[in-house]
Amino acid sequence: MLTTHPFDDDKLREECGVFGIYGADTAAAMVALGLHALQHRGQEAAGISAWDGHSFHTHRAMGHVAGNFDRDDIIRALPGKMAAGHVRYATTGDTALRNVQPLYADLASGGFAVAHNGNISNAMKLKRDLVRRGSIFQSTSDTEVIIHLVATSSYRTLLDRFIDALKQIEGAYSLVCLTPEGMIACRDPLGIRPLVMGRVGDAYVFASETVALDMVGATFLRSVEPGEIVIVSDKGVRSHRPFAPISPRPCIFEHVYFSRPDSIVDGTSVYSVRKQIGVELARENPIDADYVIPVPDSGTPAAIGYAQHSGIPFELGIIRSHYVGRTFIQPGDGIRHLGVKLKHNANRALIDGKKIILIDDSIVRGTTSLKIVQMMRDAGAKEVHMRIASPPTRHSCFYGVDTPERAKLLAAQMSVAEMADYIKVDSLAFLSIDGLYRALGEEARDEGKPQYCDACFTGDYPTHLTDQEDVAPADQLSLLGERAA
Amino acid sequence: MLTTHPFDDDKLREECGVFGIYGADTAAAMVALGLHALQHRGQEAAGISAWDGHSFHTHRAMGHVAGNFDRDDIIRALPGKMAAGHVRYATTGDTALRNVQPLYADLASGGFAVAHNGNISNAMKLKRDLVRRGSIFQSTSDTEVIIHLVATSSYRTLLDRFIDALKQIEGAYSLVCLTPEGMIACRDPLGIRPLVMGRVGDAYVFASETVALDMVGATFLRSVEPGEIVIVSDKGVRSHRPFAPISPRPCIFEHVYFSRPDSIVDGTSVYSVRKQIGVELARENPIDADYVIPVPDSGTPAAIGYAQHSGIPFELGIIRSHYVGRTFIQPGDGIRHLGVKLKHNANRALIDGKKIILIDDSIVRGTTSLKIVQMMRDAGAKEVHMRIASPPTRHSCFYGVDTPERAKLLAAQMSVAEMADYIKVDSLAFLSIDGLYRALGEEARDEGKPQYCDACFTGDYPTHLTDQEDVAPADQLSLLGERAA
Amino acid sequence: MLTTHPFDDDKLREECGVFGIYGADTAAAMVALGLHALQHRGQEAAGISAWDGHSFHTHRAMGHVAGNFDRDDIIRALPGKMAAGHVRYATTGDTALRNVQPLYADLASGGFAVAHNGNISNAMKLKRDLVRRGSIFQSTSDTEVIIHLVATSSYRTLLDRFIDALKQIEGAYSLVCLTPEGMIACRDPLGIRPLVMGRVGDAYVFASETVALDMVGATFLRSVEPGEIVIVSDKGVRSHRPFAPISPRPCIFEHVYFSRPDSIVDGTSVYSVRKQIGVELARENPIDADYVIPVPDSGTPAAIGYAQHSGIPFELGIIRSHYVGRTFIQPGDGIRHLGVKLKHNANRALIDGKKIILIDDSIVRGTTSLKIVQMMRDAGAKEVHMRIASPPTRHSCFYGVDTPERAKLLAAQMSVAEMADYIKVDSLAFLSIDGLYRALGEEARDEGKPQYCDACFTGDYPTHLTDQEDVAPADQLSLLGERAA
Amino acid sequence: MLTTHPFDDDKLREECGVFGIYGADTAAAMVALGLHALQHRGQEAAGISAWDGHSFHTHRAMGHVAGNFDRDDIIRALPGKMAAGHVRYATTGDTALRNVQPLYADLASGGFAVAHNGNISNAMKLKRDLVRRGSIFQSTSDTEVIIHLVATSSYRTLLDRFIDALKQIEGAYSLVCLTPEGMIACRDPLGIRPLVMGRVGDAYVFASETVALDMVGATFLRSVEPGEIVIVSDKGVRSHRPFAPISPRPCIFEHVYFSRPDSIVDGTSVYSVRKQIGVELARENPIDADYVIPVPDSGTPAAIGYAQHSGIPFELGIIRSHYVGRTFIQPGDGIRHLGVKLKHNANRALIDGKKIILIDDSIVRGTTSLKIVQMMRDAGAKEVHMRIASPPTRHSCFYGVDTPERAKLLAAQMSVAEMADYIKVDSLAFLSIDGLYRALGEEARDEGKPQYCDACFTGDYPTHLTDQEDVAPADQLSLLGERAA
Repeated sequence: MLTTHPFDDDKLREECGVFGIYGADTAAAMVALGLHALQHRGQEAAGISAWDGHSFHTHRAMGHVAGNFDRDDIIRALPGKMAAGHVRYATTGDTALRNVQPLYADLASGGFAVAHNGNISNAMKLKRDLVRRGSIFQSTSDTEVIIHLVATSSYRTLLDRFIDALKQIEGAYSLVCLTPEGMIACRDPLGIRPLVMGRVGDAYVFASETVALDMVGATFLRSVEPGEIVIVSDKGVRSHRPFAPISPRPCIFEHVYFSRPDSIVDGTSVYSVRKQIGVELARENPIDADYVIPVPDSGTPAAIGYAQHSGIPFELGIIRSHYVGRTFIQPGDGIRHLGVKLKHNANRALIDGKKIILIDDSIVRGTTSLKIVQMMRDAGAKEVHMRIASPPTRHSCFYGVDTPERAKLLAAQMSVAEMADYIKVDSLAFLSIDGLYRALGEEARDEGKPQYCDACFTGDYPTHLTDQEDVAPADQLSLLGERAA
Repeated sequence: MLTTHPFDDDKLREECGVFGIYGADTAAAMVALGLHALQHRGQEAAGISAWDGHSFHTHRAMGHVAGNFDRDDIIRALPGKMAAGHVRYATTGDTALRNVQPLYADLASGGFAVAHNGNISNAMKLKRDLVRRGSIFQSTSDTEVIIHLVATSSYRTLLDRFIDALKQIEGAYSLVCLTPEGMIACRDPLGIRPLVMGRVGDAYVFASETVALDMVGATFLRSVEPGEIVIVSDKGVRSHRPFAPISPRPCIFEHVYFSRPDSIVDGTSVYSVRKQIGVELARENPIDADYVIPVPDSGTPAAIGYAQHSGIPFELGIIRSHYVGRTFIQPGDGIRHLGVKLKHNANRALIDGKKIILIDDSIVRGTTSLKIVQMMRDAGAKEVHMRIASPPTRHSCFYGVDTPERAKLLAAQMSVAEMADYIKVDSLAFLSIDGLYRALGEEARDEGKPQYCDACFTGDYPTHLTDQEDVAPADQLSLLGERAA
Repeated sequence: MLTTHPFDDDKLREECGVFGIYGADTAAAMVALGLHALQHRGQEAAGISAWDGHSFHTHRAMGHVAGNFDRDDIIRALPGKMAAGHVRYATTGDTALRNVQPLYADLASGGFAVAHNGNISNAMKLKRDLVRRGSIFQSTSDTEVIIHLVATSSYRTLLDRFIDALKQIEGAYSLVCLTPEGMIACRDPLGIRPLVMGRVGDAYVFASETVALDMVGATFLRSVEPGEIVIVSDKGVRSHRPFAPISPRPCIFEHVYFSRPDSIVDGTSVYSVRKQIGVELARENPIDADYVIPVPDSGTPAAIGYAQHSGIPFELGIIRSHYVGRTFIQPGDGIRHLGVKLKHNANRALIDGKKIILIDDSIVRGTTSLKIVQMMRDAGAKEVHMRIASPPTRHSCFYGVDTPERAKLLAAQMSVAEMADYIKVDSLAFLSIDGLYRALGEEARDEGKPQYCDACFTGDYPTHLTDQEDVAPADQLSLLGERAA
Repeated sequence: MLTTHPFDDDKLREECGVFGIYGADTAAAMVALGLHALQHRGQEAAGISAWDGHSFHTHRAMGHVAGNFDRDDIIRALPGKMAAGHVRYATTGDTALRNVQPLYADLASGGFAVAHNGNISNAMKLKRDLVRRGSIFQSTSDTEVIIHLVATSSYRTLLDRFIDALKQIEGAYSLVCLTPEGMIACRDPLGIRPLVMGRVGDAYVFASETVALDMVGATFLRSVEPGEIVIVSDKGVRSHRPFAPISPRPCIFEHVYFSRPDSIVDGTSVYSVRKQIGVELARENPIDADYVIPVPDSGTPAAIGYAQHSGIPFELGIIRSHYVGRTFIQPGDGIRHLGVKLKHNANRALIDGKKIILIDDSIVRGTTSLKIVQMMRDAGAKEVHMRIASPPTRHSCFYGVDTPERAKLLAAQMSVAEMADYIKVDSLAFLSIDGLYRALGEEARDEGKPQYCDACFTGDYPTHLTDQEDVAPADQLSLLGERAA
């Protein structure tokens, strides 16, 4: 039982982060730093590809950026001035390593490496068609579909082939690609996943979040726009917009949980949005108590906002062990019930005899909410009130976020009152969907034309979900039948 | 360059934590959990010894408790109902592994394992004498001296031999020892390092801090008293006090930085002391500003206290990456200047154009204070005022704390005004020594008979420092000279 | 400097061995044993694929079969009754692992795994064509060409696609393939590389040499015939011969060096052929001496034959360390001259003052002949006569044997007299090409229609060498040019 | 089941080899080479200690010399001009590593490292006494007793202390020791285990066998004499003989099996002795047959002697896989019966229908004799006659040789006729004890004063076996009893 991240385990998880740099002397080292800053977007595998003017070099590994890409020998084996990297969640074993990105292929046009944040919602259908025509896949990743579509396109130039490929895919994609002639960065027409552009010295940088720009000392230029293809080469920076314009719908959950509080997403400070969420939450769901207590660390900015608006003191009632660098796998069977304590502990001397408001960002399965409330009661809390900094999470995401199936989402199975009973709090309240839009500076959600992708709260998916609908089995060719005469 | 803990690197570091349990079915697993809770007291090596009624089993490893002692195979190889463990700082390599505790020896009385928090200030002298009489040391640890003193004592019972040994040593020691007949826990006459006693089910537990009791679900019974030897065996719990009584002087820095905020040290909540330190600091050194910003994470409780007393809002102006589990070794040479950003980042959107008060627990070398002030200025801070939650650190510790030599302690070299210039703040202030004692509930420091060991602030050491004074080289025996006729 | 195999390093090296089994309960374990018996055919990497009735499982590793495929966890992860494996020479690193066979692909017809002994002499040309049509290669191995030819064939059944593929390739190939419907084994029309078929219980076995049949307790049935495709499935064993019949030309060097002496190749005992080679050598090149000394171990059978025919005693004058299991990398610089002694040593007490005949199987670069002659002289040999159990090796092999470029083949640069001077022997003689054919039971080489492939001795290659002739660079497509309007 | 060395597993095994060098620029690299040549004397662990004029450096590892001591980083970490090393058999795990030699201790006289070939037959008794006086052992090795005897000796100079220690120990020991003042080499008064002395350039070398001298290019000077202590320092070479002279009795089994055939032991070529053993065996036990077949590789020299004297052809009827570098652990359960074939295979084409004489060096448990005879019969042998190149092995060795307990020695349980039945041969004969002495150049064994230690054949042990007789339990001290008033 993996128990170090008891609360994180009960979170939606961003599945990927990407980072690319063109024109830097130590490109791969810069990518390693950038990926380190994006580690929270994918902690199970990482990879970097680099182009040295003659050859591509790739290193991929299970595990963190640190420990894999901070070794001089690895970085020296990734020479050149253009490089891109990727962090992701993944399962273990050999099968997994071949899925670690950047994916790479030798095309007739030369090498092609791609790092992808998002998820293609018709990948299975496209793959079946490609295999029927003779394409051989080396991974089980949806991303490889893009490469084969490029390889088998009947267009002449790589750019036309790339656009031809994009036009066949549905879903969410922020891509950073390497070719011998330069770097390609692009974002799907809805801009579901983020991608920003920056500059350091003469080099151009693309990254999933601005914190990665900060890390390498780059200044933020702008977001790559939804539906935009940006090409950086020795001829400079060019922009293409091959898609018909539509209203963008970036992921609203980046503001709630995924992005780091020190990132600027779509022009807004994540920290200030989260504090404002706390303010809205205090307005919508006030209650009297001794302390406002954040569930560390994701609940902290909203708790500060809640405390400032309500005038109730902000206190650290749950201590998270920041000194612990490695995951602790609880040994043996007899002591499993300790679970949640491996990384958090109640500040008993503070809590004992007090009425507290716990602030958390979301409830997914509810398993850890249950444990943390129990921990507060064991420490002597007189009343425990839970306030959640987002609406109830009721639907799965198919755009690159790891969500449990619906049946395991607590809010898909229970009313708020039932949830309060289940996690054993004295009261429970969620932020309203309009409250969330207000914290983002809107007046309310535009029901006809929503400003964000909020499908996890509303079930309103902005694209087709082809692979969810199309479950017909592949028709099999006959195999070793006697040879036709 | 190791850069993940840029602020931690510029801290005094507790060198050890100990944990022992007698009478539990899964003793070694409990020790692993307890050591995990004490990981902040020593992150470079760990070890556990267990007694299964017939044999001792020991496993020691470089690195964290997690990753080494959360493996079922390791824990299964440590059977029995009595076990003790140790975390420590250490250097790498084979030489180091033999220094990892618990140290173990087969004495004539049977096996003897010892885990030690503290430092023996006359160890070098004692070792020279022992070697001259034929003792062979297998480690370079001061702790091994204790074992040899026991082994060569002329007393008859193990307890008398143990007391005989303690009476020869000076300095700081909280010990947990395993023998075939039971567990011995003891604390030096001044009680310099902490040691608490707890109970879970029928089992007795000893630990450096109460958080380790919390982790294993044990209730806190009491501190082991300065100068007390506690023996737990199948005959129950006995207590011996072989030393003449003197006024204890426990380490004051446990309250300032070493202990976790959720621990109870000497009957007081560490969190509440640190908040009170913030209050005293605000009283002694008020200043007008937009925000109170903690240097995460050790400055946070004092910052909350400072903010609550001053009425200035508490805000997260520095974001620490909690998602990063492993140390990032910065690759290459060209990008070293990034240093401090690997684990922290300025919350630029908040800081820009503002007057801020930074709260940190102490200044050691000043290297990271310099960097973090610069990071605040780069983020646009209009004024940066630094307030330190302890007096200036001017003296080395010889009682089990890793301090730089005096020449590297900034406060040993500069006045406060010079320090303010050096780290480039608009103002700098430290808590007074009496302010610190006040936060601990005293009226002031009792100059004639100080209530704590505060030598790092005052230079007033409570014991002889024999090894610091006695630097005469060992006189060498002649070796392969011709044989005497 | 790798010096453990000083004599082996100066040998031609077979590049691969293959083994497959259909219908055995512990198929993968049987393959592991079979590959272990074929380890001499490829010591740098190994792989096994297995089919469990539902899925394919593959494990590939750098290094020996032992240490990789004798682990229970690995074998358990390769379940099923059909499996195939491969040993090969390869270089190190990630790039290499993707070249380790069996290669595997998901085709539209289902999974397809292939293990290949030999070399395709028009692979580069075929690959260029395939990439132009959109195929993406995941390895740099010539073998992958076969898979893509099958995948993109326009025929309907897998068998027709497979034959379509074989008809496009030139060179040497003995293949063992796995498909969901059964196993395919085949051999190129000339039968250049060996492949035998055996039976153990109800299972069918294919292997490069009969020693692998012995290892798994299988009885030898017959060789797979040149140009034959054998299919084993639940419908039994079927044989296809899609090629026009031509005279086979199996590799003659299998008898000289590659195959183990206890194998039966093309119906003949390798040991008895090598002894007969020694007899022919003694007839063609007699000389008076005290001892016949084999260069261990490949020279031993010929030395026994030479000794028995000449009446000169056979003695062990060079001792090979059989106890040394691992390669010794000579450390440091100052002692490099020791080289050859790491695995062999002169039996000085025997050699001193004697006239000796050294018997070796071949001379490639001559580097180790030089050292071993010097070792004999240093041990006091009065005269050193060298007799070689094959004709001079003057040409490179392009059919799956690792030969140095011609410029490094001593016999391609020097006459026999010059070679004798170079390696500093008192006399040197090689077996004639007709003597070699006589040892194989022929009257002589049939110059018009040679019975074997002996290109390494004669330069008479039995196939086109397309890739050797066709060195035109690939024409590059343009890439990121502006998009056509 | 470990099956790579099926025949070796059924051998007596030398437990150690030692090597030391004084005065060479690359001392540790020379030791690594020397140990590599001695690898057959101990394959499970190795260690090297070096003295650089200021400090001792030691590296010890489980496993072979190659793979551990051929790495530049390891050798560079062992600087200096004096070094010594050790190879041994050992069990796995942490416990084992602390037993790997050279053992090292910081004595009052400075560092002291010792490498020991042999076994001390009163070590347990001495250890009990030392522990009672306060010595703490860090290993379970008998060798550590020597160090503690030196450390606690009441003599003044190291040399006197060393002699004082040797006079208290019984059994077999060839030692190479490092001290800051020079190297000490010595051999027990009976000279049971070998130790030779050589020279290369200005450096002096000590080694268990002359092959190690050959490996480093050293010339053989002489054997260290039984009871002699040789000291090499910057004052040159000195020799001490502190023991009363007695007739030496070197181990006779070194000639039969332990030493490499290319070594010179006690002035005689091992290869020529083994060939002569074959001649004596043919004289004592002639039989008519088609072939003389060695059990490879240890039976080969005797088989050559047998063949030359009998006129029956020497042939390779059993092929040993020389290509296999690593131990193959047979996976799974279903195929265990293959056992012996993993490293050997019958040369079926030769054996089929023939009468053969198998020559092996000894029979220990008989398990592999049984298997190899069966292998010959399975290959079609008409008659199998076994001839053993030594007398029946009926007694355990207590002098540093790994022998099974007596109950597992086949010859201790059965007559020769019963053994023949058991291993299923048509006839079986052993060399007589006098025949063995004759092959060594003696007229016969001198029953009153045997020229060799032949206890494994005769049960006539040349020393006391104190630890075999003295099995009284240590009296335990009382431990945690109440303190005496």
